[in-house]
Amino acid sequence: MTIPSIPKGTRDFGPTEVARRNYIFNTIRQVFECHGFQPIETPAMENLSTLLGKYGDEGDKLLFKILNSGDFIGDLPASSFISANASLLSTKICEKGLRYDLTVPFARYVVQHRNEIVFPFRRYQIQPVWRADRPQKGRYREFYQCDADVIGSTSLLNEYELIQIFDEVFQKLQINVRIKINNRKILAGMAEILGYPDKLVAITTAIDKIEKIGFDRVKEELIAAGLSEEALSKLQQLLQMTRQSNAEKVEFMREWLAGSAIGNTGIDELETLLQFFQPGELQNVLEFDLSLARGLNYYTGTIFEVKALNVEVGSIAGGGRYDNLTGIFGLEGVSGVGISFGADRIYDVLLQLNKFPQKLLETTCVMFVNFGLATVQYLLPIIKQLRQQGVSAELYPEEAKIKKQFSYANARNIPYVAIAGDEEMAKNQIMIKHMASGNQQAVDKKEFVGHFISLLQSSRSVE
Amino acid sequence: MTIPSIPKGTRDFGPTEVARRNYIFNTIRQVFECHGFQPIETPAMENLSTLLGKYGDEGDKLLFKILNSGDFIGDLPASSFISANASLLSTKICEKGLRYDLTVPFARYVVQHRNEIVFPFRRYQIQPVWRADRPQKGRYREFYQCDADVIGSTSLLNEYELIQIFDEVFQKLQINVRIKINNRKILAGMAEILGYPDKLVAITTAIDKIEKIGFDRVKEELIAAGLSEEALSKLQQLLQMTRQSNAEKVEFMREWLAGSAIGNTGIDELETLLQFFQPGELQNVLEFDLSLARGLNYYTGTIFEVKALNVEVGSIAGGGRYDNLTGIFGLEGVSGVGISFGADRIYDVLLQLNKFPQKLLETTCVMFVNFGLATVQYLLPIIKQLRQQGVSAELYPEEAKIKKQFSYANARNIPYVAIAGDEEMAKNQIMIKHMASGNQQAVDKKEFVGHFISLLQSSRSVE
Repeated sequence: MTIPSIPKGTRDFGPTEVARRNYIFNTIRQVFECHGFQPIETPAMENLSTLLGKYGDEGDKLLFKILNSGDFIGDLPASSFISANASLLSTKICEKGLRYDLTVPFARYVVQHRNEIVFPFRRYQIQPVWRADRPQKGRYREFYQCDADVIGSTSLLNEYELIQIFDEVFQKLQINVRIKINNRKILAGMAEILGYPDKLVAITTAIDKIEKIGFDRVKEELIAAGLSEEALSKLQQLLQMTRQSNAEKVEFMREWLAGSAIGNTGIDELETLLQFFQPGELQNVLEFDLSLARGLNYYTGTIFEVKALNVEVGSIAGGGRYDNLTGIFGLEGVSGVGISFGADRIYDVLLQLNKFPQKLLETTCVMFVNFGLATVQYLLPIIKQLRQQGVSAELYPEEAKIKKQFSYANARNIPYVAIAGDEEMAKNQIMIKHMASGNQQAVDKKEFVGHFISLLQSSRSVE
Repeated sequence: MTIPSIPKGTRDFGPTEVARRNYIFNTIRQVFECHGFQPIETPAMENLSTLLGKYGDEGDKLLFKILNSGDFIGDLPASSFISANASLLSTKICEKGLRYDLTVPFARYVVQHRNEIVFPFRRYQIQPVWRADRPQKGRYREFYQCDADVIGSTSLLNEYELIQIFDEVFQKLQINVRIKINNRKILAGMAEILGYPDKLVAITTAIDKIEKIGFDRVKEELIAAGLSEEALSKLQQLLQMTRQSNAEKVEFMREWLAGSAIGNTGIDELETLLQFFQPGELQNVLEFDLSLARGLNYYTGTIFEVKALNVEVGSIAGGGRYDNLTGIFGLEGVSGVGISFGADRIYDVLLQLNKFPQKLLETTCVMFVNFGLATVQYLLPIIKQLRQQGVSAELYPEEAKIKKQFSYANARNIPYVAIAGDEEMAKNQIMIKHMASGNQQAVDKKEFVGHFISLLQSSRSVE
């Protein structure tokens, strides 16, 4: 017998994993909705014309393309089917691809439905995306993104809300994090003051890595990129300005950036944003980090990144402001700001920190033992009543040995087992057994439902 | 400007549609869980070898295949790229396909994870599937299935539970339905008694259509299939046996099937199943329907189908028992029984019957008007407190004209708008306005959160 398998980089999720993943999704969803964000969903398949060219050459290669149905060859000459042509050919035999992220489909959605949408549009979207990346630890070919964006408003109150959302989500999940912010305009100002406004990308790409590789290697990269010794010592001085409060950093940077108009705008934006926060309002640290750059070509204002403390896992959420997301589909001048949670990494963090609630493992509240038709008929009305009260209950479907039925309940993490043998039935009773403690007690059949519900409530309040 | 679009047969779902769809999914999920079913999720992509040959030739054609990444041509000779070869060629340049239903991936899951699974395994799965069907009204290329199966138990108590689930789901959704049941063994018995045990498929395929096309055309089909006049008049007599209670039908059929061992087993199973139900237990009609056949080659015992009353939409749920689902992957002798809800059709029924709860349209509970920085700072702590109490609240992000802010609240179906202008701020108050009635009242800022929550609760209890 050949055991069937699934494509590499994909995963099956069993009941425990689904419960844990839903715990993450539901926590994020609840916070999004509390802030007035509304859900949308887009199809798994988009036209390739929507996706191609939006993620760079590397991204184009990582798109999963869907073969046209029926005769996908048609008039294509046999001579075009050569390996060297594979990339070009793929776009002729495939019209559709699987979505690669939620941002481009969202931009497409906004343009396509712009006449139905009420702006400012606060949307969230929690759906899987697919990438033909080389599978490796923690990187999958199918994974979920959880995005929230506000589109059609330039107000920095949106940034403020998104930072609150980071703070609330991770507080609810009991993960301590550091929320880092920066502003692309500050980065542009830095490049100006250093004398290399045209080398913005090289400079920020390099300093983005400072935490990982240290200043010396950043310096090497920037010398290779053509920066002068003078500029580099100026930069070093700047990046050594650490361990100060956000207010001190802002003050320092305002002076440092004095000669740059864009740099000053960036500082103004950052200062306005920081002033919305009351002292002690956030549970987590909010840190202005000059070296934060994240996907710079994309963002135009505020940039966010969230890192978990006490665990090595990279960033678990991020985002930023983009002034022209829908421009790629011809709708200009719509500013937006958005964030994204990496559900898979958050899953790993919760697992490592052992922070998943224990109750996620419990499913059915009570299993009734099956001793054959007489018990079944005795118990069915009780089971129905329990379910009507919202209590999940199961009757073991077979008249199996009691040991087998109990080991089923054990393996399923069912906390209570109920038994009605001849003796109990004769007395109009049901025996209820708490699996963890072994405690059992006989309860009058008529009072069983009420009794069991108060038992559940008291055991929950103890937890 | 070219407006971007999505592939035909796929859909975008806006906030209202997502809320309505989640209402359906959550109702079904809640009932599944109350009966002890556990969720699993499988990847969107399966290996083509898992999918091919499982849905017949027609199904194979309707699979969406995913082009291999990179050089998908490799050693394939250019001469193999001709239209006549398209079907064969597609399996050489594609290793993966999108799942076509949830049943085959579930069978694959059970075989692959058989050592981790606790049997009897009650699993549910709510995920999208993809079919390259010709798009038409009510038929999509991406749609959700909501399946529940019990695998590893032959007990008819499982069928009983699944019928309860049908009944509870549609009761909660306020859709009146007729739940039809039959048994494949009864159909096999009928074919035997008619003298054509080998024509079981032709006979049941024909009579399955009797409601749609009438007995005369069914008769034509069966004459063409080779049935004698005598057999046909016997069949007609049988199918005219309508408008009787299930018990009467069972009695009649037991006699009619007297000479068929398999037919008798079918009647025994049906009778046992029916006897689990207490009088008045179900909210909907449960009807033994001899002409119900549904995907006969697949089912081996009980067959279910659910039709909505008062609306023309076909079946909205169905299912049945299969003795050997996992046999296709080499694991023999595992019996299962399952049901599936058609979420898209249920959506259409709820829309036609106007049975979606009104509250699904409401999202944010209250929007705060933005009059600039002073109000913003006055309001932010209140908004934060509301959210901490689980109340969804928004501050309009821009200092826009009040008319614009109110029309945003209207368009978004936000029931309350809160205002703090100079006057209110001077008195330490906030004005709260109920949008539908126009009623407004000034509330002390300190008491606002408590006041608003009791306002919400009283308006909800009125609904």
